[in-house]
Amino acid sequence: MLIAITMGDASGIGPELILKAWLDQELTGDFLVIGDYEVLKYCAELLKYDVTLHKLSSVDDLKAHCLNVLDLHLLNRDDLLIGQISRASGAAARKYVECATHLALEKKIDAIVTLPMNKESTRLSDPNFSGHTELIAQICGQTNFTMMLASSQLIVSHVSTHVSMAEAIQLITAERVYNVIKLTHDALRRFIPNPRIAVAGLNPHAGENGAFGREEINEIQPAVVRAQQEQINVDGPIAPDTVFYKAVKKQYDAVVCMYHDQGHIPMKVLDFEGGVNITLGLKVVRTSVDHGTAFDIAYKGIASTQSLVAAYHYAMKMIGV
Amino acid sequence: MLIAITMGDASGIGPELILKAWLDQELTGDFLVIGDYEVLKYCAELLKYDVTLHKLSSVDDLKAHCLNVLDLHLLNRDDLLIGQISRASGAAARKYVECATHLALEKKIDAIVTLPMNKESTRLSDPNFSGHTELIAQICGQTNFTMMLASSQLIVSHVSTHVSMAEAIQLITAERVYNVIKLTHDALRRFIPNPRIAVAGLNPHAGENGAFGREEINEIQPAVVRAQQEQINVDGPIAPDTVFYKAVKKQYDAVVCMYHDQGHIPMKVLDFEGGVNITLGLKVVRTSVDHGTAFDIAYKGIASTQSLVAAYHYAMKMIGV
Repeated sequence: MLIAITMGDASGIGPELILKAWLDQELTGDFLVIGDYEVLKYCAELLKYDVTLHKLSSVDDLKAHCLNVLDLHLLNRDDLLIGQISRASGAAARKYVECATHLALEKKIDAIVTLPMNKESTRLSDPNFSGHTELIAQICGQTNFTMMLASSQLIVSHVSTHVSMAEAIQLITAERVYNVIKLTHDALRRFIPNPRIAVAGLNPHAGENGAFGREEINEIQPAVVRAQQEQINVDGPIAPDTVFYKAVKKQYDAVVCMYHDQGHIPMKVLDFEGGVNITLGLKVVRTSVDHGTAFDIAYKGIASTQSLVAAYHYAMKMIGV
Repeated sequence: MLIAITMGDASGIGPELILKAWLDQELTGDFLVIGDYEVLKYCAELLKYDVTLHKLSSVDDLKAHCLNVLDLHLLNRDDLLIGQISRASGAAARKYVECATHLALEKKIDAIVTLPMNKESTRLSDPNFSGHTELIAQICGQTNFTMMLASSQLIVSHVSTHVSMAEAIQLITAERVYNVIKLTHDALRRFIPNPRIAVAGLNPHAGENGAFGREEINEIQPAVVRAQQEQINVDGPIAPDTVFYKAVKKQYDAVVCMYHDQGHIPMKVLDFEGGVNITLGLKVVRTSVDHGTAFDIAYKGIASTQSLVAAYHYAMKMIGV
């Protein structure tokens, strides 16, 4: 198995997290970094990290006891604007992800772990850039995907993510809910034999039999029934203020959520730093840290590797290691 | 100070919780129960609880070392349908609350702590009964009130509660958000000198400058500014998936939430059993347990008094004891 870690925006905390996790031997198994050798070298010098970097000529050229870097040679140390929006860093971060996705589609790597891009920086060279996940999906030529968040306490997936609440309500269709149940089931099966899935309602008390909204009756319930008919172990719709407690108590392995914050609020309250973002439904396996570029603390050596390590371990789980 | 605890639906766990909390000396200070003496006596016999009950003739007649009961004499032990929907129990539970509210309005008691009613049971005699809180508000002749939930880790209040998500979005007006900020501020000031309030956004990332919805810009922000102009210490709108973490880390004393589950999800994930429900905006001080009648475990002596004790202590806090 071989995992690629994309370096993320060079102005942020991506480079130092890779160096630190390598130094602390937190990343086991074979992996390589897709990024800029010069940036990593400079970052190691600044932080006085004793890291042995190896510049790869190809993905087969991995060297033991080194941090293996597939160098795209897009940035030099003079280009670097630490902690700042930068057109060059934004464009480079996009290229790392593009390269990783192509390698994954060609089966030269088994999974991608991504470090954060900066949307504003990348938009300076690609005004249509809407997000990291959307970019990977676009390269894969796929549109049916979703975001799963995982921590040691809770796993959630989402029927919609970055849309207004008014639009999120419109997106709750039996078809879409069924799709997300199925994507969640298929992802969990990679590491849990018979996953138990809960589906949250949209409305308070899951609508109380239609008293507070009919989405449960008209859309969510039919989706649950369809999935059950396909032998998926799924319950719902369950009252949103109860379902996460049940999942934390291990009655369920994951909760399918009706909108972004329904899943994000309990995740971040339970574990603000250690969350992993897993993209479901794509041809490639991709996990990501659950934090941003953190420009305010970049190159200071104080950023936590917790989410990177968790994302790396989830990538291993997803490919069955 | 004198607090009244309403016994709740006699078929549920209300009676035993009062007996148990009294036996365990969990309720300090002067209080009385408003309910049925016969029911409490019978419950104590069944559970072999050695409780000395004192039947009050008036609220001034409190006797030391006894569980003081203002007996409305509505139910006998033969009327009791333990763990079942009952017209008689439902109607009686309504009367306890009515009596308590009138006593509070007459300033004969300082606060009300309510044990759970059963909506279905009460509707058998009062088909228009919509909820415990609405009943108290109606007796007070007030319409501008809201629900605050409190635990040791988090306090939240709500712009709307038992309405569909589609309707909840419509209810987010600058006027209503301002009102809830003000109600929250006034309540917290009863026990925190200069409370720090956070206001959650409605949309993911609080709308990201209008990219995912404009409620933050058009309604929430103006309400926050108006409150700030009145010297209320309030920030927002803050991203919903970040604001609760900040509150738990004690950056804020409370979070004003845009809909039922935005507040209920983090509350129940953090503390499923110990939550307290506090009604804000009424002429009377009222706190409530955050659980239901739990018919399935009624009269078994296994229900937890944790929420009752917390509700009682919050009532004391609210009246400055």
